[in-house]
This record gives sequence, structure tokens and C-alpha cells, in this order.
Amino acid sequence: MIHLFHRRITFSLALTIGFLILIIIGSILLSLPFADKMGQTTNYSDALFTATSAVCVTGLSTVTTATHWSFFGQLIIMILVEIGGLGFMTFAVMLSNFAHQRMSLGARMLTGEALNLNRPSQLRIVRLIIRLSLVIQLIGAILLFIALKPRLGIGKGIWYSIFHSVTAYCNAGFDLFGPSLEQFNNNPYFLTVIMFLIGAGSFGFLVWRDLLTYHIHHKLSLHTRFALTVGIIILILSIVGFLVSEQNLKQFSGSLNEIQRFFNTLFLAVTPRTAGFVSIPYTKLTAAGVVITIILMFIGGTPGSTAGGVKTSTIGILFLQSIATFTGKEASFSHRRFTRDNINRALTLFCSAILLIIFATLLLTMTQPLSTHNGIIEAVFEAVSAFGTVGLTLGLTPHLNLFGKMIIIALMFIGRVGIYTFMYSIFKSHPTKQSYRYPEEEIIIG
Amino acid sequence: MIHLFHRRITFSLALTIGFLILIIIGSILLSLPFADKMGQTTNYSDALFTATSAVCVTGLSTVTTATHWSFFGQLIIMILVEIGGLGFMTFAVMLSNFAHQRMSLGARMLTGEALNLNRPSQLRIVRLIIRLSLVIQLIGAILLFIALKPRLGIGKGIWYSIFHSVTAYCNAGFDLFGPSLEQFNNNPYFLTVIMFLIGAGSFGFLVWRDLLTYHIHHKLSLHTRFALTVGIIILILSIVGFLVSEQNLKQFSGSLNEIQRFFNTLFLAVTPRTAGFVSIPYTKLTAAGVVITIILMFIGGTPGSTAGGVKTSTIGILFLQSIATFTGKEASFSHRRFTRDNINRALTLFCSAILLIIFATLLLTMTQPLSTHNGIIEAVFEAVSAFGTVGLTLGLTPHLNLFGKMIIIALMFIGRVGIYTFMYSIFKSHPTKQSYRYPEEEIIIG
Ligand SMILES: [K+]
Ligand SMILES: [K+]
Repeated sequence: MIHLFHRRITFSLALTIGFLILIIIGSILLSLPFADKMGQTTNYSDALFTATSAVCVTGLSTVTTATHWSFFGQLIIMILVEIGGLGFMTFAVMLSNFAHQRMSLGARMLTGEALNLNRPSQLRIVRLIIRLSLVIQLIGAILLFIALKPRLGIGKGIWYSIFHSVTAYCNAGFDLFGPSLEQFNNNPYFLTVIMFLIGAGSFGFLVWRDLLTYHIHHKLSLHTRFALTVGIIILILSIVGFLVSEQNLKQFSGSLNEIQRFFNTLFLAVTPRTAGFVSIPYTKLTAAGVVITIILMFIGGTPGSTAGGVKTSTIGILFLQSIATFTGKEASFSHRRFTRDNINRALTLFCSAILLIIFATLLLTMTQPLSTHNGIIEAVFEAVSAFGTVGLTLGLTPHLNLFGKMIIIALMFIGRVGIYTFMYSIFKSHPTKQSYRYPEEEIIIG
Repeated sequence: MIHLFHRRITFSLALTIGFLILIIIGSILLSLPFADKMGQTTNYSDALFTATSAVCVTGLSTVTTATHWSFFGQLIIMILVEIGGLGFMTFAVMLSNFAHQRMSLGARMLTGEALNLNRPSQLRIVRLIIRLSLVIQLIGAILLFIALKPRLGIGKGIWYSIFHSVTAYCNAGFDLFGPSLEQFNNNPYFLTVIMFLIGAGSFGFLVWRDLLTYHIHHKLSLHTRFALTVGIIILILSIVGFLVSEQNLKQFSGSLNEIQRFFNTLFLAVTPRTAGFVSIPYTKLTAAGVVITIILMFIGGTPGSTAGGVKTSTIGILFLQSIATFTGKEASFSHRRFTRDNINRALTLFCSAILLIIFATLLLTMTQPLSTHNGIIEAVFEAVSAFGTVGLTLGLTPHLNLFGKMIIIALMFIGRVGIYTFMYSIFKSHPTKQSYRYPEEEIIIG
């Protein structure tokens, strides 16, 4: 147990350092003159920001991807996105093996795993899923090409199709069109392809592994069933929320018909978790729409996927646990109790994330020249977007000063590697055997 | 244990119903024609809002206390504040006895309490503290009278002194001067008296009981030491925060000298937890100042006091627990470990409070006609102010429609009786003996 815990820390450290190295290499490449369209050296803080945003599959940017970077620069960004996205999901599969190994022998006997008889090697699975990812991205690129060729011709059409298929599958939110995908808000086909790519990527490798090995185990893991259930419920709630708050985007009824507007409403519900593409400018939403978006960005997606945020499973556990606490029962899902440890982890993660966002907002409001009220929500939006590695913006990011860029860079990084992983690798914490313990005592709460 | 748990529920229910009855009686009295300065019947929703705000010692108001209500109306408000404030603190002392009874016999033997030898009867203690409260309020009224007599004469001076001494001690934030205490922002003496009254009331009876019986036990309870320590740390941090963010209120350097501005900075740090008096309009603060205020309102004050919010002890435990989690140690304070149950309660309370605020903000933004960005922070501010029973406002409350008033009324009520008490009395939850338990299984968090 302690041994496995140490391996977890070593792994966390490896992930953190690996991402750091990737970001540094990326930032150096991006600051080279031929990464810039004008052939000039990009400000290093902007190069670092863009590299972090790409590796952490966020999509926030202090410069406009389409106009600032050369083809070489854009290629670097796409490669960083692909390595960041697929690399992280691979890592998640590896890490989940440790969790498996922590299962009691009895439980493993039950699933026939004790002797690893029926279990294909994890490396084979990872290779399989990476191949699957590439195939999905290829199909996505072809489908996008159908829509883009008439506009852009063959050469540019192919490049744009590949770039956006990669950034959509990796939920990275970078685009080459200028104001994100706003020019496609009248094109349900294009939006739908992007949404399917986003969905496929947001499952994460753990869910894909489960789905791919279903024929062997004939059951889905609790993780997969729970993640899918919570994800679908949140998606439905958010669609209903946006339909109510924006009334099917009636503010765009002049330029878009009812069906087009409905697809944009769907897009509003899909993109904050955590794709970050924009088909409707967020400054044109109602106050309620912005609040729903912030909530969705904070929740994020499935653990072990391209998503940031606190993750659907955390929210799901907290919801079930809240009900359980007040009804005096135990939190359970699908005939399984959650372990006490699991629930505490969810609670701690939620609290840490909230504290992180509050602290970041405080720092942003203290260091950026913001208007009193309007500025606060812009800061909150940007902080949550970075932590959730979403990439949506109310317009603050391009105006950040150096300190502000550092805050957002830190949020994207922590949001991506995860608060736990980040903290483990900093504190190298492990459960020490203390030689004495203080006596317990209660204080009054609430 | 189950028995005590049931008594706790009965008590929670009694508090909830008692407060409800008090609010209903108050609202009926306030809707009578002679409670209104013009002799007209006040809109029932405004009377209900004011009665709730008074009983819950909040101070938010849809009408202006000074100009809307007659002397009778203002007297009703003052009496509701006094009953609401002192009544709740009495209740907290009673409830804490149950916690004491839950201590193991061994622990009680250690403190000499098993035979109740050295322990004065709780009723005597409560009577003592109520008398102490009245004396403090009387002294406060005399000190305020010194400042008010020259302005208002003897008759009005006495009435205003009593009213504001009561509302300050009970941290209720109601005032008879119009825009709160803004006309006293050049009067450090007046602000200081108010701050001392706020401080005395915000200790709560549990701390007062400990201080008053110190000569018997020769030690302070963990609750008292912890509450005082965390309270002082947060106060110092908030003073520093406002000094940095507002730079000693340099925006008022035209009308106030440096010392006057420093006292207003102190007042900014004291009033959000949870007095709700205003000496500097919040619309003139920087974005960072507003964020700090929201954080302080959310934290609130000492459990069992006139304060709302999640309480200092909750924040203190979460802070210690966060450090403990990441360093692999156990959370402790003053050579005492916190129980696992205690920590879970703190985590659950924090999460529930955050979810409540988010949900209320969502409802407010969906039902009130608000501007897109500015309106969100107004809604958050008002929701946190109501939940923390603070009473500060960015100006939204007087413009609320009926639905908005109901949301704020609910928040004030839940904030006052406490999320746990409220939930216990609704669900009447108790730990049921389940005849079977599901097997445990872990899912992936974060
Ligand atoms: K993203
Ligand atoms: K108050």
C-alpha cells in the first residue's frame, strides 16, 4: 500500500516534470522568429503562455493563433496539443493500474484478474487506444474537409481540417479562423462534426479501454458507468439551462433560423466541458448564461480525459453524498458504496479547487487594471476557464500584464495535471508513521 | 448516542419553527398601518422581508428603515433583532451541552464534569450572559449617545443610541441614518464604539461562557481558543488586504484625513463579518476590495454567535486539513487532533454553502433583469451577504422582484439557522440501521 503510494508519487512527479519539459521546449520553439508570421521574435511570456495553453489543451491565448503564428508556429501548437492530450490520457490509464493493484486479492479473484489470465497487457491497450484516437481524428478531418474545401481550397482545406480535428478531439480550443468558430454558427453540419470530436475525446482513455475490452469482461467498470451517467445528466441539464436562459438564442433570430440556433444552443452546452470553441460570443449571452457556463467550466469532464475542472465524478459523488448525509444513508451508485476515502478525496478536491479559484481571482483583481464590478466576473470567468482548461474568455486574456499571464499559466498547469498530482509532486507527501498522536477533540461546525 | 442525536434534531426543529413563528408575527406587525410612517399598509412581501432580515440579524432591506417605518415599526425591528440575536446565542449554549454529554465518561472525569461538581447550572450561565449582553448594550448606547446628542438632541439621541447599540451588538446592520453610517466616516470615535459592539456580539455566548467560567475551569475550551485564533488571523489578513487593495482609501483623500481613512479601512475589515454597517459605499471600492468583502462575508464569524456564513472554525479546520492532507500528517491544533467526523462536517458544510450560493446566483440571474456582467457580481454579492446574514449590498436588494425577495429571504433564513439545522429539521434525518450494505468500490477522483 505504502509502496504503491510511492509509485503514485513517482508517477505524479514524472507527469509534472514531463509536462514542464514539454512546455519549455514548446515555448522556445514558439519564440523563434520563423514561428511568427512576421518573422519577428515573439515576446517570451506570450510564447510560454501559448505553449502552456497548448500542452494543457486549454486554448486561451494572449495572441491570435490565426494571425500571429506562421505555419511552423501553428504546427508546433498542434503537435503540443496532440502530445499533451494523448500523453495525459495514456498516463491516466497507467495510473489506474495502480488503483487496480490496490484492490484486495479477493476482489481480484472475483474478476479473474489475480492471475492476469484474461487481461490484455496494458501497453497493448494503450497502443490500441492511441491508434483509435488517430483514426477518429482522421475521420474527423475528412468530415471537416467536406465543409472546408469549398471555402479554402484543397491545400489550406487539408491543413485546417487536420488542425481543427486535432484541437477538437483533444478539446484544446485553438482555431485558425479568427474569432473561434463564429463564422460556422449557421452551419449545423460543421458544428455537429466538431461536437462529435469533442465528445469522443472527452470520454478519456479509461472509458475507451472499458468499451474496447467489454467483450472480455462483459461489464463496464464503476468508473465508466458513473462517468457516463453523470456526464449525460449534466449535459441534459445544461441544454435545458441554456434553452431557458437564452430562450434558444432569440437574440440571434435576425441572422439564424430556429434549427441553426438550436445547434448553437447544443454547442453552448458542449463546449464549456472543456473544448473551448466559440460559435456565439459569450459577451452576448445573458447573465444566467454566463453563470451556467462558469459552473460547467468548473465541473469539467471525465477524469483521465482531455478535460480539466474538478471532473464529473467528483460532482456526482458530492451530489450523492449530500443526499446521503441529510437522509442518514450511505452514498452508493449501482449497488456499490463509495469508500470513505473516495468521498473525502472528492470533498477535499472540490474545496481546494474553489479556494484556488477564489485566490486566483483575488490576485487577478489586485494586479490587473479592472473595472470594479464588470472586471470581477471577467476575472472569475478567465480563472475558471484556465483551471478547467476550457479556453473560453470574456476578453480579459489578451490584456493581461505579465503577472496576470503567470497566474493564468499556473492555473492551466494545475488544472491539467490535477490538484492532487501537483501537490503530491511538490510536497512528495506520503502517510508517515507518526510516533505519537494527539488525543481527539471536537469543535463546533456551522 | 442515537438518543442524543434525536434530542439534537428536536432542538433543531424547535429553533427552526421558533424563528419561523417569530418572523411571521413580526411580519404581521410590520404590515400594520401604524408601523408605516405614512400610516399605510406595507406590501406584505416587504414586511416579511424586513421581519426575516431583523430576526436573522442581517440588515438587508427592500425599504429604507429610516424613512419607511414609523417609531413603532422601528421598535418592532429592534425587538426582533434582540430576540433573534440573543435567542440564537442562548440556543447555541444549550446545544453545546449535548456535545458535552457526548464526551466519553473518561474525558468528563478528567475535567471533573462527570459528577457536575464544579459546573454551574447552564441556565444560570445563560442568564448571566444575557445580563452581560444587556449591560454591554447599555454601555454602548451611552457611548453612542455622547456622539449623537449634539446632532440629534436628548430624545432622538437616546432612541438612536439604543437602536444602534442593539443592532451593532447583534451584528444586525439596521440603521436609522439613511445611507447606513456613511455620515460618520469622519468620526473615528463613533466608528470605534460601533466596532467594539460588533466585536463583543460576534464572540457568541459560547466564548463568553468560557471567558466567564475561566476562574472555575482554568482553561479555555478548544472551541474558544480555536475560534479566537482563527478570528484574529482572518481579521489581520483582511486589514492587510484592504490596506493593499484600497491603499488606505486614497480615493477619499479629498474628504478624509489619513487617520480617518485608516479607521474606515478597519471598519471595512470588521463589518463584513457579519455586521453589515457601511461607512464607505461599496460601489466605490476597487474590484479587489469587493472580492475580499465577498470572501469575508462568506466566512462569517464564530459559531454560536450573531454571525452567519460558514464560520471561522470551518475555514480554520479546512485550512489545517488541507496542509495536513498534502504533507501526509493529521490535522491538529493546540495538541488536539480534530475528529474525522469534525473534518467531514467542515468539508460538507463548505461544499453545501458553495453549492447553495451558486444555485441562488443562478436563480437570481435567471429571474431578475440584470445587466450581463455587472449583474452577476451584484447577484453573488447579495446572495453571499444574505447567506452570511451580513446585510451589505451593491444595490440589488431594493430592486428585487417577488421571486428575488423569496430567494434572499430563504438565504437569510438558512444562513441564520445554519445549513445543518435547516436540513435536519426538514429531513428529520437520523442514522438508520440498514439491514444490508453494498460492497465498497473506489472511483477515480480528480
Ligand atoms: K480546452
Ligand atoms: K448583519
